Amino acid sequence: METEMKRTRTVTWEDPFEVPKAAAGRSGLDLLKDVFEGRLPPPPITATLGFRGVHVEEGKAVFEGEPGEHLYNPIGSVHGGFAMALLDSAMGCAIHSTLQAGERYTTLELKTNFVRPITVETGRVRCEGVVVHRGATIATAEGKLVADSTGKLLAHGTTTCLIVSPP
Amino acid sequence: METEMKRTRTVTWEDPFEVPKAAAGRSGLDLLKDVFEGRLPPPPITATLGFRGVHVEEGKAVFEGEPGEHLYNPIGSVHGGFAMALLDSAMGCAIHSTLQAGERYTTLELKTNFVRPITVETGRVRCEGVVVHRGATIATAEGKLVADSTGKLLAHGTTTCLIVSPP
Amino acid sequence: METEMKRTRTVTWEDPFEVPKAAAGRSGLDLLKDVFEGRLPPPPITATLGFRGVHVEEGKAVFEGEPGEHLYNPIGSVHGGFAMALLDSAMGCAIHSTLQAGERYTTLELKTNFVRPITVETGRVRCEGVVVHRGATIATAEGKLVADSTGKLLAHGTTTCLIVSPP
Amino acid sequence: METEMKRTRTVTWEDPFEVPKAAAGRSGLDLLKDVFEGRLPPPPITATLGFRGVHVEEGKAVFEGEPGEHLYNPIGSVHGGFAMALLDSAMGCAIHSTLQAGERYTTLELKTNFVRPITVETGRVRCEGVVVHRGATIATAEGKLVADSTGKLLAHGTTTCLIVSPP
Repeated sequence: METEMKRTRTVTWEDPFEVPKAAAGRSGLDLLKDVFEGRLPPPPITATLGFRGVHVEEGKAVFEGEPGEHLYNPIGSVHGGFAMALLDSAMGCAIHSTLQAGERYTTLELKTNFVRPITVETGRVRCEGVVVHRGATIATAEGKLVADSTGKLLAHGTTTCLIVSPP
Repeated sequence: METEMKRTRTVTWEDPFEVPKAAAGRSGLDLLKDVFEGRLPPPPITATLGFRGVHVEEGKAVFEGEPGEHLYNPIGSVHGGFAMALLDSAMGCAIHSTLQAGERYTTLELKTNFVRPITVETGRVRCEGVVVHRGATIATAEGKLVADSTGKLLAHGTTTCLIVSPP
Repeated sequence: METEMKRTRTVTWEDPFEVPKAAAGRSGLDLLKDVFEGRLPPPPITATLGFRGVHVEEGKAVFEGEPGEHLYNPIGSVHGGFAMALLDSAMGCAIHSTLQAGERYTTLELKTNFVRPITVETGRVRCEGVVVHRGATIATAEGKLVADSTGKLLAHGTTTCLIVSPP
Repeated sequence: METEMKRTRTVTWEDPFEVPKAAAGRSGLDLLKDVFEGRLPPPPITATLGFRGVHVEEGKAVFEGEPGEHLYNPIGSVHGGFAMALLDSAMGCAIHSTLQAGERYTTLELKTNFVRPITVETGRVRCEGVVVHRGATIATAEGKLVADSTGKLLAHGTTTCLIVSPP
């Protein structure tokens, strides 16, 4: 009898528009708490890649992820898209958490520095995003992605977001 | 009887180390052609997110992707990680295609500008990466992601990679 | 008698508010043409660093600069601030040239890749900025800085600007 | 009798190669202390723009600058090149301060977020750069530029540098 590594993965998700619909009339922090604490469904991308929001407060958000073989690139490590998605989520939600009811935001740009490779052996990773500047129209944030077991820095980044206010 | 949207997705992949093992003694372009043309398995991340390499030549690589609901963020559009993963792949492979046998590369940083939202309605997207500078130790590339049907620009970026030569 | 290198430099400039005052009711391109063609005074920074606008059209601007010893850093080459200032000017003016009367812009972020060192021996440099995306609120541009005599790439960059429209 | 604003500025500097020559056989921190404390001449760019190094320790460097009219752009504020030059200096020297005797570094890329305009009224500005990651070949740093009197953030950035070791 042969053993074989199971190279298949099935993900499920719920209606991604439940959260946007629930956003009306609520602050960003209130809305995100409902998502992070399970009262609203997590966005599909978190199931697809394998990460989740674990903490949000005003101006800060934390995500954790599990590097798996389903994330590998052709050069023997986890694809950069995983680190960038975590940084985007953590920094974007840090800014999202500062929105007043009626405000929206959109990410204009994001830069990532990759400082150590991520592999399955890295184990769980933790990504923290914090707001650096919150203006009326523009907000910036920075984020750091570390290996949860060792605290070693894996990647870091900055982002610029546009805040859209109700007319 | 009710119909219901099927919100589940199963992906399969092959051993991600087949490509790195096949790299020994071969140029980057030769290796990537084998991947892009199906003689070597595509990396798992392409199945996970839903994209594929469609063309590679020296200094240039093109990928196509299908925005799906499995990629959605909590604000009603495809998560930025999708565009960044495509840009990373296209720009990284553009640089990879310039490697001589024995050389390796690693991505140091990547910056993305998001200029239009991506949704399921966007349809197929196309991402082209081209080398801007190829030095002995450092290479840079730029990439553009467009909607395939309209040619409209969705995102663009630049990257810096380190070339590691055999000792 | 010994000769000695003259390590002093005197610059003069005109009222930097003449151009902003002249901007009222005029398109960005009209205004910049007056600056580039000498009917309005060049901004002081161009005298301070040693560069000038040489061409502007809708969506594109070109600057030339003269690397001098007054620009040196402590590691034996021209300080990165010179390349970044040229890229900022070329990309910013490319976007400025798309403004309608009444519109203003501000630069949100700028990223530069330095691909070759600049020294006095490099001679004249040429920097071209072009608009990549022009939306109602956000514009992006890319720029390339080359050695004028050889065409070799010295640095390249991208920028994101916010367009502010009259209320 | 009319008074007139004096729109001229004369700068002087010393041989920019004194510092590179003095670098042989010394650590980056030792060398930079000699520059910051006046035993070696400051680089010409600091006179040209109007800033100076005020503190350096291993992994951190601080500069101060004086926004003047000689730095203005055509849109009524200090040109972005000033903030970028300060960030480049502070982050670059933070990395330089970690070099062992014989090591050199070169800046690969730098990204700046501009969060508030700088004008003459801003008064003295202070820029602190700190190392984020120091590997054998690659180092990254981040920097913040603030108004000295109020502590308000004006700009922030990140950089990637290549460390070149003796063969």
